[in-house]
Formats: sequence, structure tokens, C-alpha cells
Amino acid sequence: MMDLRQIGEFGLIRKVKKWMPIRQREVFQGIGDDVAVIKTGDKVLLATTDILIEGIHFKRSWINPYHLGKKSLMVNLSDIAAMGGIPKYFLLSLGLPRNLPVSFVSHFYRGLRDGAKQFHVDLIGGDTSLSQKIVINVCLLGEGKKNEIIYRNGARVGDDLYVSGTLGDAALGLKILQDKGFRRKPKGLIERQLSPCPRIRLGRLLSQRRLANSMIDVSDGLLIDATHLFEESGVGGRILEGCVPRSNLYRRYAALYSKDPYQLALCGGEDYELLFSAPPDRKARILSLAITLGIPITGIGKILPKKEGFRVITKEGKEYLPDCLGFEHFR
Amino acid sequence: MMDLRQIGEFGLIRKVKKWMPIRQREVFQGIGDDVAVIKTGDKVLLATTDILIEGIHFKRSWINPYHLGKKSLMVNLSDIAAMGGIPKYFLLSLGLPRNLPVSFVSHFYRGLRDGAKQFHVDLIGGDTSLSQKIVINVCLLGEGKKNEIIYRNGARVGDDLYVSGTLGDAALGLKILQDKGFRRKPKGLIERQLSPCPRIRLGRLLSQRRLANSMIDVSDGLLIDATHLFEESGVGGRILEGCVPRSNLYRRYAALYSKDPYQLALCGGEDYELLFSAPPDRKARILSLAITLGIPITGIGKILPKKEGFRVITKEGKEYLPDCLGFEHFR
Repeated sequence: MMDLRQIGEFGLIRKVKKWMPIRQREVFQGIGDDVAVIKTGDKVLLATTDILIEGIHFKRSWINPYHLGKKSLMVNLSDIAAMGGIPKYFLLSLGLPRNLPVSFVSHFYRGLRDGAKQFHVDLIGGDTSLSQKIVINVCLLGEGKKNEIIYRNGARVGDDLYVSGTLGDAALGLKILQDKGFRRKPKGLIERQLSPCPRIRLGRLLSQRRLANSMIDVSDGLLIDATHLFEESGVGGRILEGCVPRSNLYRRYAALYSKDPYQLALCGGEDYELLFSAPPDRKARILSLAITLGIPITGIGKILPKKEGFRVITKEGKEYLPDCLGFEHFR
Repeated sequence: MMDLRQIGEFGLIRKVKKWMPIRQREVFQGIGDDVAVIKTGDKVLLATTDILIEGIHFKRSWINPYHLGKKSLMVNLSDIAAMGGIPKYFLLSLGLPRNLPVSFVSHFYRGLRDGAKQFHVDLIGGDTSLSQKIVINVCLLGEGKKNEIIYRNGARVGDDLYVSGTLGDAALGLKILQDKGFRRKPKGLIERQLSPCPRIRLGRLLSQRRLANSMIDVSDGLLIDATHLFEESGVGGRILEGCVPRSNLYRRYAALYSKDPYQLALCGGEDYELLFSAPPDRKARILSLAITLGIPITGIGKILPKKEGFRVITKEGKEYLPDCLGFEHFR
């Protein structure tokens, strides 16, 4: 009898797409992008959801309730950022153990409230249940203009591939937390893990100025998220390992946890940076946007015809087809 | 140190309302009704979410994956029904154990698809995660006309109180399932537990014809849901125990599980019937609607001034203030 290990998370998602065909014409985008997109008058409604489960996504030994509350909203905001959308409202389902201190819950909501305030979103509803382990599910709604939404499937052959910020910090921060427990150093890496910052403003400006053809947020790991973008666009791509932006802290600490100095930056996940493709003639405007916002934006590769597949070029100039791409549930 | 047992689910919800004030004017209704209501142009967007956790809401020993999939959608549809809204789209978050057979998941989705087809809703997105126990979270979106939405807070002194269908069957079905395991008799009671039917059409017609002043779905139990409706409306109320509609099967089997022949009908929960209040002059139209739809609608009480509180009148004519109201998490 086949179980979920054999088909993996992405195999399951492919099946679900077949099992649940969409019947309503107003659904511009169902399963298969960062968020769902639905026509509502002259605007579009955006909807996305993310579940966090204790013991799987986090442990109480390395994240405090404040950061947990904030992060559970931030990871959803990042999906709206990846469409160039405006986040608006969210619903929160919580499964909580009976013996959880009320102070844990109030700190959780304090983190949530600070995140909600920062990005001007309102909690509009939810559900609460008893549970053995803490379970957090946020469903975030947003809006956008129909013609400004950036999908995963718009990459064209010849586009440059860009990524914001630096990669691998959050994954490295997690390794340090798992290794050394709560609130250890260096703070910069730990913060990237505990308190990710969604790129809402960057996403908005890329979409309003029509600078990107396709976009996705890097949540499972650069290589796997790039694969999603390439597959949805029906293209291939090349990523230059040596160009992948890594922070100074990453360069200093990565060697303690991985022999390969690029491994966590390529496959680590939870970066919540934006990966996008754009025609070469937008380069100057993109780089000037990076300066305006004070966010690094780095060219890391190129969109190729589909038949070229997905290649990573090492610093030494060797090519390989990525194998272990990043994080996938059930595998 | 205070824990969740001490404040209970509803104490927590009251705190959350204070912690998370709503800032956007378009939010007509946030936490505190069956669904959130948001202005979008000349329509309103409705949003609701419900979480189901293995071991808390269901056990694999008494519900099969087909019914589980269908039910996880139905309980959300019932919330939209309680506003008189039209369900449209939903997102699904799943936490699943690694060793779950793929056939379990495919049957789950078959149930989900049959429910989605029946009520013309589309699955537009979701999230999938590894989990020890099965966790299911549905977030359902719907729409309605601004002036047709029926809130919990519209009950007026003098209104009659009505409920659709019969109460207690689902709770009794659960007792039988827990007692005797999978697929036992009588089928009618088991089905009410495994395969609830949301009253979408009834809710729509009550709202379009403006027959009800206030409405809620009976999910936690008649008495507790009536309390919510009374509190939100700032009124009191009287329920005549002897009028509470009970099915023939309920009358036959309830005595096996409860000494009090009304207990499960009053406090059992998971009925997914509609409880609503309406001015006395609507009575004839409401009863004729019941005949048209073939759904029993029963007058069970009256809306009173707030100072009268909430009274239940027994068949013997005794009055009591309900004490154990129904189901509440953490208590």
C-alpha cells in the first residue's frame, strides 16, 4: 500500500490539482502559485494559507510565543508579497493544549498584533480548539489590480533571474537554535529564523512598475522554489552558485554546520526573499529600486529554454542538475 | 499561573477581541459572528474557518476518510448558511502523518469533492504539512448582498425564536459511534454525525426574503449558541424545552445514553441547524417556507428583555437558568 512518503508533498499537490478541478470562471489562479487569485469587480482578491505545527515547524525550546505569533503571520504575508499584492485581513485557527499558560497565548497575540500593525492587516476571524500540540493556521486575504499581479508562470526565455536579500541565514539560524537552544548567537542569523520580514514593499513596487515577469517567495529553498517557477512557466534556467547572495554572518558561521559553503543558501529554506525574473532591459531600473529601498537585489542566473533543464553552475565552472532541492514534507 | 482551563475557549475569544482591535473600516463584522463580513464594492465578502484535529474532533475508528473530507467542508458551509450567504471558494490546510496511505488521502478528497460539487464551491489553495495527528483546517470564502446578511446581533425583544430540523441526533450518533465503533446503527443518527448537511438554501431564502432578524448555526449546542445570539443582540430569551424538535430515532435511542430526554438536544452540538429570531408577523411566511423546502422549522421560544436573562422552561412548567450550556474547548 502506497503511503505519503512515496509520493511526497509535491506529488500530493499534483494529485490534488487533478482531483479538484475548478469550475468557477472568476478563479484566475487556483492551486499552483503562492496565492489564489479571484476576480472581484475591477480588482482581484488574493488568498493564501500556511499551517505551523509544533514539533514539525517549531519547538517551544527555541522560539518564544511572541516570535511564534509574529512569524505565523509573516510567512503568509510573504506569499502576498510574491504576487505584488496588498495584504488586508486574516483568519487564525489555533489548536492549543489545555495546560498552556494564558501568558503564552497573550504573548503569542502580542507578536501577532505587532506584525498586523506593521503591515496594516486586521484579524477578522478564526477558530480555537483543544490540541495536544500547538497548531497554528493563518489564512490571509489581500487584494491587487488585475493587471499588476505577478504569477509564477510568466518567466520568458532570456529573462534575468534575481533574488532579494541574502539566502541561507534563516536555515543557518535554525541549525544554531537546534544546536544551542533558545536565544543564542549570532543574533543576526537567529533573527532571520525567528523574525522573518516579508518583502511586501518590494513586491508592490516590482508589480506597480511592471519590472518582473514572474515571481515566487523563497520559502522551501532557492533551488526548489526556482524549480516551481521554471515548471509553472514551462522554461529551464541556470543559476550561478557563486552569485547567490550570502551575508557576512553566513560566510562566517556556515562552515560549522555544512561542508558545502553554498548548501544552506541553495536549499535551506525560510528565507522569505523574493525570486523573480525580468527582461534584460529592466536591469537598471531594478538595481535603482534596490538602492531606493535599501534591499540588496542580486542577479543570480538566466531563464533558458525548457529543453536546457535546470542547471546550477558552481564557482569552479562545473555544471550540475540539482538533486536534493530543498525541503519537502513526507519525504 | 493561569492556564487555558481557567478562562475556557470563550474567555479566550473575549480576550482576543480586545487584543486585536480592527482598524479597517471595510470590516463590517470581525470576531464575534459565524463569519467575518467585509465590504467589497456593492457586495460583501464572507470568510470563516474551522479546524478539525484527530483525537479531539474525530477518531479514525469511527469516521472514514470520505466522510471526514466532506464534513470538514460542511461545517464551514454551515457558518455561511447562518449569514444567509453564498459559499464560493475554500482553502484547505492539511497536517498528515508520514505513513498515511495515499488511499486515505484520495478518499478524503473524494468526500471533499462531492461536497464541493454539491454546493458549487471550488478549492483554490492550501498548505500541506507533516503532522503526528491528522489536522484539517478549511477557510471558506463566500459572498452576499450587504443588506441581506443576517447577523447574530439583530434579535429584538418580542421576536419568536425558531430552529430548523431536529436537534440532538448528531450528538447521539457520536455517542453510538464512540460506544460501538465504525458504521453502527441506527443509520439515521450516525449519518447526522458523519455527514451533516448545511442549511445553505434555507439561510439564503430567509435572508433574501428578510424573514429573520438574527441567525446563528447550532454547532456547539442549542443552549450555548442561543446564549451567543442573545449576548450579541443584548437581549434575553426563553426556550420551551418541550418544543425543541427531536427526531423519532432520537426519542427511541436517547434514553440509552442520557437520563434526561432533552439533554443531548439542548447541549449536544454538531446539529448544524439554523437558530434564528423573527418578528411574530413573519410566522406564516416562515412556516410556508418550511413546507416549500421540506425542512421542519419549529418555534421554540421568545426573545425577552435583557434583564429577564436566559430561561429554559421544562415540560413540567419549571424554569431554570441553563448551567452546563454545551461544548467549550479547554474546560
